[in-house]
Amino acid sequence: MKRIADSTVRRLSLYLRYLEDAEGRGLPTISSDELARRGGTTSAQVRKDLSFFGSFGKRGLGYAVPELASRLREILGLQHDWRVIIVGAGKIGAALAGYRGFQQRGFRVIGAYDTNPEKIGRQLDGVTIHDMSQLERDVARDRPHIAILAIPGEDAQRVVDRVVRAGVRAILNFAPVQLHVPGEVALKTVNMAMELEGLSFALTNRD
Amino acid sequence: MKRIADSTVRRLSLYLRYLEDAEGRGLPTISSDELARRGGTTSAQVRKDLSFFGSFGKRGLGYAVPELASRLREILGLQHDWRVIIVGAGKIGAALAGYRGFQQRGFRVIGAYDTNPEKIGRQLDGVTIHDMSQLERDVARDRPHIAILAIPGEDAQRVVDRVVRAGVRAILNFAPVQLHVPGEVALKTVNMAMELEGLSFALTNRD
Repeated sequence: MKRIADSTVRRLSLYLRYLEDAEGRGLPTISSDELARRGGTTSAQVRKDLSFFGSFGKRGLGYAVPELASRLREILGLQHDWRVIIVGAGKIGAALAGYRGFQQRGFRVIGAYDTNPEKIGRQLDGVTIHDMSQLERDVARDRPHIAILAIPGEDAQRVVDRVVRAGVRAILNFAPVQLHVPGEVALKTVNMAMELEGLSFALTNRD
Repeated sequence: MKRIADSTVRRLSLYLRYLEDAEGRGLPTISSDELARRGGTTSAQVRKDLSFFGSFGKRGLGYAVPELASRLREILGLQHDWRVIIVGAGKIGAALAGYRGFQQRGFRVIGAYDTNPEKIGRQLDGVTIHDMSQLERDVARDRPHIAILAIPGEDAQRVVDRVVRAGVRAILNFAPVQLHVPGEVALKTVNMAMELEGLSFALTNRD
């Protein structure tokens, strides 16, 4: 398949949310205009985004809601049961362990890891915190698909190297640093301060 | 000024981080190659990104680290003391109230808001939780620049309308919905489940 841009994948996620809204309200079809309006884009962009994955919709009739929703779930891999571990059981790790949106989308948090003896053995919303020294053994046994890194920046590269060496192939990084991973590993970084810097830039440079 | 893409602003934030690293290590200059490597881009892109804001660096000598760092802080508006409120004192709101990276960048959390009587009056890492009913009065008095929304999706549009009407001009949204705000309001959305969906897509569609 052609390389699909992150921004396209992001919009597919947004379209799916609106389709599921529409499903909930019992609408049989939705127009590309409507999807575009809800996704903050143009109907031409909607058609282009969907065209990567085959032919959808009928001119003048729009998209059949349940079919397109189901196809988008398939494209995004959401029919899969993804096993997720959280590395770092601080405040951000704790917030993520209890995040309901994950479970709803098929992301199942199967464990958390920390080095702090006070935390090991405790639960975060039903997720047990394990000793970081067990990481390699547990990954070999449980084969998590995704690791969420919620640790300080200064430890992050060392820890991600361990996680990747243990066999995890997708990383969601909350540490405020740019990490380096091999090409076969998918990596996304969420940096809260950088998001605020984007707003600071907008406030400073607006007309 | 020309409209600068979000992705450019994001890279400026990354470059600044590496320049500050270099400052800490006492390096006088840094090459565009080095900035590019650390920012995951090309040296041509580094030069292009910086060229929006004037002329930096000398051919063959690279960029003077303290000067470029200081200029980037200025471009990003980080010399400003930004007042931030957090709307929603659940787990994500609590994690954000204690997030050290904000204070370091000049983002000062001056208050949190919630509707839950059990939470009102309590503290989150030194940030007081106020009654949501006081939002308009407090915003008129304290003039926060940025509001972070850490509330459920179903309430988010209604709440962001209130926050914007009260006079806040920049929003960082953690609710898992696309919000609509007037053109003069800067909005960024961080959606944890959508970040994982990007990884799910990558795992599903890799070669």
